[in-house]
Amino acid sequence: MTEPLRIALAGLGTVGAGVIRLLDTNGELIARRAGRAIQVVAVSARDRSKDRGVDIGRFDWIDDPAGLARHAQADVVVELIGGSDGPALALARATLGAGKSLVTANKAMIAHHGLELARAAESGKLALKFEAAVAGGVPVIKGLREGAAANVIGRIYGILNGTCNFILSKMEAEGRDFADILSEAQRLGYAEADPGFDIDGVDAAHKLSILASIAFGTQPAFGDVAIGGIRHVIAADIAEAAALGYRIRLLGIADSSAQGLFQRVHPHLVPLSHPLAHVTGSTNAVVAEGNFAGRLLFQGAGAGDGPTASAVVADLIDIARGEFGPPYAMPADALAAQAPAESGVRRGRAYLRFTVADKVGVLAEIAAAMRDAGVSIESLIQRGASADGSVLVAIVTHEAPERAVAQALERLRGSQALAGEPMWMHILGD
Amino acid sequence: MTEPLRIALAGLGTVGAGVIRLLDTNGELIARRAGRAIQVVAVSARDRSKDRGVDIGRFDWIDDPAGLARHAQADVVVELIGGSDGPALALARATLGAGKSLVTANKAMIAHHGLELARAAESGKLALKFEAAVAGGVPVIKGLREGAAANVIGRIYGILNGTCNFILSKMEAEGRDFADILSEAQRLGYAEADPGFDIDGVDAAHKLSILASIAFGTQPAFGDVAIGGIRHVIAADIAEAAALGYRIRLLGIADSSAQGLFQRVHPHLVPLSHPLAHVTGSTNAVVAEGNFAGRLLFQGAGAGDGPTASAVVADLIDIARGEFGPPYAMPADALAAQAPAESGVRRGRAYLRFTVADKVGVLAEIAAAMRDAGVSIESLIQRGASADGSVLVAIVTHEAPERAVAQALERLRGSQALAGEPMWMHILGD
Repeated sequence: MTEPLRIALAGLGTVGAGVIRLLDTNGELIARRAGRAIQVVAVSARDRSKDRGVDIGRFDWIDDPAGLARHAQADVVVELIGGSDGPALALARATLGAGKSLVTANKAMIAHHGLELARAAESGKLALKFEAAVAGGVPVIKGLREGAAANVIGRIYGILNGTCNFILSKMEAEGRDFADILSEAQRLGYAEADPGFDIDGVDAAHKLSILASIAFGTQPAFGDVAIGGIRHVIAADIAEAAALGYRIRLLGIADSSAQGLFQRVHPHLVPLSHPLAHVTGSTNAVVAEGNFAGRLLFQGAGAGDGPTASAVVADLIDIARGEFGPPYAMPADALAAQAPAESGVRRGRAYLRFTVADKVGVLAEIAAAMRDAGVSIESLIQRGASADGSVLVAIVTHEAPERAVAQALERLRGSQALAGEPMWMHILGD
Repeated sequence: MTEPLRIALAGLGTVGAGVIRLLDTNGELIARRAGRAIQVVAVSARDRSKDRGVDIGRFDWIDDPAGLARHAQADVVVELIGGSDGPALALARATLGAGKSLVTANKAMIAHHGLELARAAESGKLALKFEAAVAGGVPVIKGLREGAAANVIGRIYGILNGTCNFILSKMEAEGRDFADILSEAQRLGYAEADPGFDIDGVDAAHKLSILASIAFGTQPAFGDVAIGGIRHVIAADIAEAAALGYRIRLLGIADSSAQGLFQRVHPHLVPLSHPLAHVTGSTNAVVAEGNFAGRLLFQGAGAGDGPTASAVVADLIDIARGEFGPPYAMPADALAAQAPAESGVRRGRAYLRFTVADKVGVLAEIAAAMRDAGVSIESLIQRGASADGSVLVAIVTHEAPERAVAQALERLRGSQALAGEPMWMHILGD
């Protein structure tokens, strides 16, 4: 057996401690599979004395994480600090600059700086790997980079944020409202105290932009992702969607065509016949559509110390085996700069929900706005007045350009008939 | 860009022609991703003149497939002849013997001779890759070898035969009987004229033994797979299962423990809450349970020329990139020889269906046999007499050792009460 692969690890939160525990628990098996041992030699974190349930006394302690890049024994630095910039980015740059390979779980940093880091890695013939940055323990980046590498990918989409899926599937199971479930999730530790990053779709957008770049061979373009979250989904939306044969999921969805690169994170109605409709709890699932492979689905735990550590160590095993190529499946300089696609011309079916005043002529006004914009209605449910006197109208449209749906909503803006902002969700199409 | 990777291809059926069409269609993208072009230089098949929809005039034609192993330009041989022995095996041995790498979609050959071929490949530092042998276009071998490589895998199971899943899900959707759907599937080309290989579970067993070896680091042991098929599943089983909250799927399932290596292919009842219950048509899906990653699911098209060609070319891309290690994730000589586990001590819930004569005391006799064997009944459905006067009794048991269920059935053997062989299916447990 050859020399061990020596690791310097920055960040000892639950994932960092999970990586150490994983290497302790499965180390022998990993060495057999990797052809050599994988050994932590140095660590860095904010607090040396904190009890993390793993013995860190056997590793070199380095106060300044950037110092790990200069550690004489380390072959690879594992960055688990988090944050798109700051110490994580400084360490990433220093690591590649010092001629060491880098493994990270940091989706924000890769979404913002992945291209720069990939160029640095490639020019140094180093590994830059980030399987753990998307869908936790699910090997979806490997699935795209390698498993589906023979395919032109037409579309990629999936459930990329476990917190949102936990909330939506709990709303679905219990008929409760968003705010109610969110505060429970926060109490239980399933959602952050500041949940915006998750529930407003930013986290899913980070992951989507990484997947899109690998799938389509385009430059990462996080800034071009249209982002929406789940704050405005109400229990009644879930009930109406169910009555119509759908479940609501926050999807990241991207495609690349002559119209440009389309990337969107938004709550969608998913037909019950689709596997994503059956993904519940904090599970993540990604679908890639290849021109030869057809529809591939990768599903599993999207977060948590065990799954995330599993993905980090899978990257380390690849590096130990000498198996790594360009981070985005082709050289960074071969990635195409593609302009964002204009969404108005996209055709699809839409779910629209209006909260309206309970008075004569409201339905006629909505129907007229739809007709005038050229959007035809496939089904409509109106529910009688609730305690506050408001009435709910839920509509599923036939296929129409998104621009037409937007026009219909524009016509209704400021109408006395509406008691609040309408909700517009897309319906996942084939 | 470096030299192309040059391929000699044996077997020009739908998959072979699919590989050529895929390389023609996506060749430029593949070259960017692989870092070099992938180029067919020679082919061999039975009939040179047959129209396959692709131009083969540009390749060297070799009459004897084994001649491809000696082709001066070829770096890699792709074997798509099929069959566990005969010309496929002769070509595989000759290829590795001649110092060329081998890619194959041949599950039967790998199930029977994979260990021998892996040893030959490893001693020559050659690639032996067979992603297409399991679950068609789904990169599940890569998912196990690499994506989940950091994990001790506790159990692996899934839907491994598309024909069986097509038949079962069509029986389910249309309430029709097995023989009826089978002949339709044969007419449509979804099932072979001689369907035994698929519907009796042999094909799934080949795939299961390959997955088990990679997942557990054990020597491939196809001969130890307990094999059952779907011939005896009747429409009423599917209806009773549905009434109890289950769908019936042919599952390959394996685990490795101190009790030994357990491998079984058998129809199972899958709870509706499980993703495999929602896999319909000829789709394949594999679940791997890792001690850190948790439950990983890989799903997609299990057969067809496009998906299979996608997997074959993914293997070629790995080879072009220089990224391949031991075929079973660790050196063949490190694979443990594990004795088969005794199934009698396994605990689980069972579905039992009896076709009984419509007379007094039948239910008492069945219930007594179960009681005497120590098997307790969770639910029981008895349906009134059908046209032929027989009555159906469907039972779901509480968890019990399989040995006890077998004893109960043994007690009932030869009973005048039974109008036919009882059906015993396992219920997929957590």
